[in-house]
Amino acid sequence: MEPIRVVQMGLGAVGCGIAQTAMGRSQLQMVGAIDVDPAKVGRDLGELLGVEEALGIPISASLGDVLASQPVDVVLQATGSHIPDVVHQLKEIAEAGCDVVSTCEELAYPWLRHPELAHEIDAKARECGVTILGTGVNPGFVMDTLVLVATAVCSGIRRIESRRIVAARERRLALQQKIGSGMEQAEFRQLAARDEIGHVGLRESFYLIAAGLGWEIPAAQETIEPVFAEERIPTEDFDIVAGQVAGIHQTVHGASEGRELMLDLTMSMAAAASQDSIKIEANPPMHVEVVGGTHGDQATWSMVANMVPRVAAAPAGLLTMLDVGLPRAIG
Amino acid sequence: MEPIRVVQMGLGAVGCGIAQTAMGRSQLQMVGAIDVDPAKVGRDLGELLGVEEALGIPISASLGDVLASQPVDVVLQATGSHIPDVVHQLKEIAEAGCDVVSTCEELAYPWLRHPELAHEIDAKARECGVTILGTGVNPGFVMDTLVLVATAVCSGIRRIESRRIVAARERRLALQQKIGSGMEQAEFRQLAARDEIGHVGLRESFYLIAAGLGWEIPAAQETIEPVFAEERIPTEDFDIVAGQVAGIHQTVHGASEGRELMLDLTMSMAAAASQDSIKIEANPPMHVEVVGGTHGDQATWSMVANMVPRVAAAPAGLLTMLDVGLPRAIG
Repeated sequence: MEPIRVVQMGLGAVGCGIAQTAMGRSQLQMVGAIDVDPAKVGRDLGELLGVEEALGIPISASLGDVLASQPVDVVLQATGSHIPDVVHQLKEIAEAGCDVVSTCEELAYPWLRHPELAHEIDAKARECGVTILGTGVNPGFVMDTLVLVATAVCSGIRRIESRRIVAARERRLALQQKIGSGMEQAEFRQLAARDEIGHVGLRESFYLIAAGLGWEIPAAQETIEPVFAEERIPTEDFDIVAGQVAGIHQTVHGASEGRELMLDLTMSMAAAASQDSIKIEANPPMHVEVVGGTHGDQATWSMVANMVPRVAAAPAGLLTMLDVGLPRAIG
Repeated sequence: MEPIRVVQMGLGAVGCGIAQTAMGRSQLQMVGAIDVDPAKVGRDLGELLGVEEALGIPISASLGDVLASQPVDVVLQATGSHIPDVVHQLKEIAEAGCDVVSTCEELAYPWLRHPELAHEIDAKARECGVTILGTGVNPGFVMDTLVLVATAVCSGIRRIESRRIVAARERRLALQQKIGSGMEQAEFRQLAARDEIGHVGLRESFYLIAAGLGWEIPAAQETIEPVFAEERIPTEDFDIVAGQVAGIHQTVHGASEGRELMLDLTMSMAAAASQDSIKIEANPPMHVEVVGGTHGDQATWSMVANMVPRVAAAPAGLLTMLDVGLPRAIG
């Protein structure tokens, strides 16, 4: 079987991780890399990834530049969390006839926050005969896809609770900062009120589960609260003193027709260990634990690479994890 | 949306459980029931299920009898564990133009033990434009599908171990007897040597995982050993004395190109608690536990009912859990 030709679009920390991971897959062939940063354009991808030998893959400024020299099957997009920020790129990729696997969090269930943009993207994808999928570890796997799969053996579901604890001390600085570590309470609350802090994707996971189960839950409630440090938390890069923010606790909850869905996410420098947990009240009940949690970064990199053949084989359109077959690792 | 019209074929303990479960689904409409037992034919399905009021669904002797009075979309087959025992029925159902969700264990990965029959069934299904799927809790879910989904966030998999412990004391008598409870060692070993005891489906799970991951493991090794009672085990129906067989311990193991797959199943009256466990050595590693295990009977009933819309929407052919989309509960 011919390898699937992929291009990495976006070479931040996530994009570089995906590129490195995808290059380890025999079913995929990395044929290009794209970033808007002029300081990266023109350099060899290997240099950016810290690989000793040059890969012979120059970083391009645009997909057009890559396509000028060879065909591309699938673009791996890691350029933004919000649909309005990536919609222009998605349309451009579709018009070039390439499928997309994207880490854009809002794309995991795009029909929620941006139904009009989602329809535009979907129409463009169908018109161009390409598939577009948003995925990753969260949203995309641990608090939605894995939850849905766990329901496959259940009847009469009354309540689903998915709880994720991320021990942020084990994670990179960008995540530690994203969750407000070291902030004062007032600053956190101001940012939260302006929607400028918190995990993007929890509502998407919620509505992906609801859509997968055929549950109509019109009004899910979201909460975002700071987690406070109870004692001094020293880290490599900064210290958090007692009383300062150590992380976030975010929930999305909704109920309808006697069925209840609760997603509960804590990402905190104070958390002792990571853990993912799914509890389904049903016949039979299911209680799934991912001991030690599902690693955020590495899992996202793997998920994107693993979904490439699924997306390449899927029908055209803006799809979700409900539509692209059984997710699994590829060789 | 119009409900999918289903018929239950086979009204043993598993078939009755599926029928009852399927009738609880708003997306499904039970329009008939079939059994070969003359003592059941002609009675109302509700009577067999212990429902107070008659359901108006007479038990028929054949699919033809059901089809004489109404159309059928999907047949839920629970009539045998081995492909040679059900192949005739499958062809008959296909010729009637109905899809099939079957609990036949060998059908979970039919290309292994009976490649020629599998090709015949597949050809017939395609010719008739119907879909045929073998599924259940095990094989079909806990030691294969769930394992595959857990790999979706992994790269560089070195070893996968799936371990299932069934505390047989919590299960029905038929299972307790199936695993050799109360036998003397010599009798167990004679039956094992003749392939007349043990769980059907562990090799199917093994090769379903291998196929899903694209691993070629030509020579998997299977072991079946008795588990002995260390002390007297009293049960509702019989007592097991120390030294007698309390259950089975069965494994399938294989390795190829530095990758290893181990399935390890214990079903024993001596087991204190049920538990399912998946350990994947990879980047990132994944360690999934189903606390308290996945209940065998109820999970199979649910799985069959939940997969009906997936199978109704899938392309024609003899498919596996790799081919029918994301498994999940239906309303």
